[in-house]
Amino acid sequence: MRENGHLFGLHRVIEPAGGLPQASKRLDNSAPHYDNEVVIDVATLNIDSASFHQIKGEVGADPDKIAERIMGIVAERGKMQNPVTGSGGMLLGTVVEIGPHYDGPVKVGDRVATLVSLTLTPLEIESITKVHLDSDQVDIKGRAYLWPSSPIVALPADLPERLALSALDVCGAPAQTARLVQGARSVLILGAGKSGMLCAAAAREVIGENGSIYGFDLRSDNMLSLHQYGLMDTFRTGDATRPTDVLDAVLDMTGGELVDVVINTCNIANSEMGAILSTRDRGKVYFFNMATDFSKAALGSEGVGKDVDLLIGNGFARGHAQMTLNLVRRHAGVREKLQELLS
Amino acid sequence: MRENGHLFGLHRVIEPAGGLPQASKRLDNSAPHYDNEVVIDVATLNIDSASFHQIKGEVGADPDKIAERIMGIVAERGKMQNPVTGSGGMLLGTVVEIGPHYDGPVKVGDRVATLVSLTLTPLEIESITKVHLDSDQVDIKGRAYLWPSSPIVALPADLPERLALSALDVCGAPAQTARLVQGARSVLILGAGKSGMLCAAAAREVIGENGSIYGFDLRSDNMLSLHQYGLMDTFRTGDATRPTDVLDAVLDMTGGELVDVVINTCNIANSEMGAILSTRDRGKVYFFNMATDFSKAALGSEGVGKDVDLLIGNGFARGHAQMTLNLVRRHAGVREKLQELLS
Ligand SMILES: NC(=O)c1ccc[n+]([C@@H]2O[C@H](COP(=O)([O-])OP(=O)(O)OC[C@H]3O[C@@H](n4cnc5c(N)ncnc54)[C@H](OP(=O)(O)O)[C@@H]3O)[C@@H](O)[C@H]2O)c1
Ligand SMILES: NC(=O)c1ccc[n+]([C@@H]2O[C@H](COP(=O)([O-])OP(=O)(O)OC[C@H]3O[C@@H](n4cnc5c(N)ncnc54)[C@H](OP(=O)(O)O)[C@@H]3O)[C@@H](O)[C@H]2O)c1
Repeated sequence: MRENGHLFGLHRVIEPAGGLPQASKRLDNSAPHYDNEVVIDVATLNIDSASFHQIKGEVGADPDKIAERIMGIVAERGKMQNPVTGSGGMLLGTVVEIGPHYDGPVKVGDRVATLVSLTLTPLEIESITKVHLDSDQVDIKGRAYLWPSSPIVALPADLPERLALSALDVCGAPAQTARLVQGARSVLILGAGKSGMLCAAAAREVIGENGSIYGFDLRSDNMLSLHQYGLMDTFRTGDATRPTDVLDAVLDMTGGELVDVVINTCNIANSEMGAILSTRDRGKVYFFNMATDFSKAALGSEGVGKDVDLLIGNGFARGHAQMTLNLVRRHAGVREKLQELLS
Repeated sequence: MRENGHLFGLHRVIEPAGGLPQASKRLDNSAPHYDNEVVIDVATLNIDSASFHQIKGEVGADPDKIAERIMGIVAERGKMQNPVTGSGGMLLGTVVEIGPHYDGPVKVGDRVATLVSLTLTPLEIESITKVHLDSDQVDIKGRAYLWPSSPIVALPADLPERLALSALDVCGAPAQTARLVQGARSVLILGAGKSGMLCAAAAREVIGENGSIYGFDLRSDNMLSLHQYGLMDTFRTGDATRPTDVLDAVLDMTGGELVDVVINTCNIANSEMGAILSTRDRGKVYFFNMATDFSKAALGSEGVGKDVDLLIGNGFARGHAQMTLNLVRRHAGVREKLQELLS
């Protein structure tokens, strides 16, 4: 074991020294672990979809060649961060050792998933045992190291693993939604996919039956199911990239009012203004959508003279993983739809 | 006069129809005005610095060629939006007409500045009378049209015009700072330039002498002046793009504590993590810096397990212009420094 592990993992950064692990070109991925680290015997890498597709495009849909490319990246960088897309993914494995200064929510023997990106996770691969071409997953033999500031979670025994992972992937959104809708009387879910459905459930638990939850998405099936389970009052279909279409749909659903909070969980670009126009004066817009453009939101809001709070979807919130798993447990409607999206 | 002007100016959009003026390729910049518009006899265009430099690079530092290029852009687009940089600027002029459905804070005869970007302002140029090569300004004869959702402001009689403009350019930041620091006991101003100094003054007025205001910037002169005028308690110099340098400076200034609110008013990329690391659990980070990257903030915060609110700097807040001009009036230290930066 090595001493003096740094809270943010600076001890693992080789280049550029002094920077944070995520921004680094190269991490030290070697044993032994530091005193504040958890050591994970890695079973599976969930490669970020953009990254996996880039590699497949580069070397072809050949498991051996993909494995070779992944081994190459990790040998060079000490982490699985695709140099072209910049993106990572997450991993699944078992805790095999815990340093005396690691204080996280897991113990030796737990089957765990990381809630931070592979772009900052020191990873040593011994061998790649299988490449799953259609699920962007890679089974490996190897080890990863994480420190206290990098959230990880023990997988629950009562939920199918893939279901749990799919909910955990977006668990920042429902946790933050629950806070933002405190005191709100109307909420719009813009983009009712995985995270959007979990946010609807989180919002309903906070605002109850007296507040209204509205939905807007390209397709109606998820929203219909949310409606049947009492998690969405009214919804419309349409294209979130057309701002005035979103606004018109909202005014139509509410009888002419703007909403207190908009939760943007679309997965496409140019959905900023639909969200902003639908929000009442001094209301809040929460952007979980990673395709959000900072200056489109900042200047767009100014351009229409909207005095609203614009929030960036932080992927972390205290207790986000357990809270989200509990939502999945409590809401059969959401659970069924998440399950359906997996198959 | 034309009837049925739309609240958000959709009536001026030629292409793509139904979109918002800012996102449009081409606006209708012709007379007569609509019933909800104010008509401005334009005196000067303040071209966005990135845009002006791009044009100068393209055609050379020749006033006639620059004028020709600007005339060309406006003829093609109906607005002064640089097709390469995408950016605009703002304008100065005199109100000459007001439609019956315009309800803004100005009257005929007022000398005004627009608080929204030229990227959404219908503009008709008759002639360009002078190009000011070193101040990115262009004097013109022409007309602009704006509707109620586009804030404009009457220039105050008691402040020099250029000083007022420089403060109004960033007036969203102090207005939002005043809200965010309610109840805060410590605030970090990261990047103490024009907007940073105004934010320090706004924060001091709200939190008083019992709260602490800290500063971090490349150079000390603005911060020293703020300190002398009682608007900043302690400061350090350093590079905001080095996250742990910022964190160490904060811990050093506070005696080991993180701060409640960070106001990021730098003008450079990669300053997200310094701001995030310096913020306490459940604290707030306000990004006014337009070089902020949405995903660097969202994923970076997750990567270090920071449960903080991340706010996008909306350029608009109700009353922001008057509030900022009042700060300039009340704080001689800020006024002198802003004046100094102009010369
Ligand atoms: N740290 C973070 O902030 C973080 C973490 C994880 C994920 N995310 C982001 O969260 C977003 C949502 O993730 P997710 O897993 O919930 O995605 P998802 O399940 O694919 O949900 C996105 C939803 O938006 C809908 N949609 C797509 N285009 C639309 C349009 N033009 N108009 C209206 N609706 C539209 C989709 O409909 P269709 O299915 O019909 O296309 C889908 O229902 C993604 O952008 C992801 O990057 C952020
Ligand atoms: N709607 C909006 O959200 C909106 C509207 C207007 C402006 N803005 C943005 O607000 C930001 C600030 O505008 P401003 O007018 O206040 O700019 P400014 O006067 O130039 O202030 C920026 C300050 O940051 C300092 N700085 C630069 N690099 C740094 C580094 N590496 N480390 C520490 N400090 C550094 C600068 O120092 P030096 O002077 O020594 O370089 C300067 O003091 C800009 O990014 C602008 O785009 C946003």
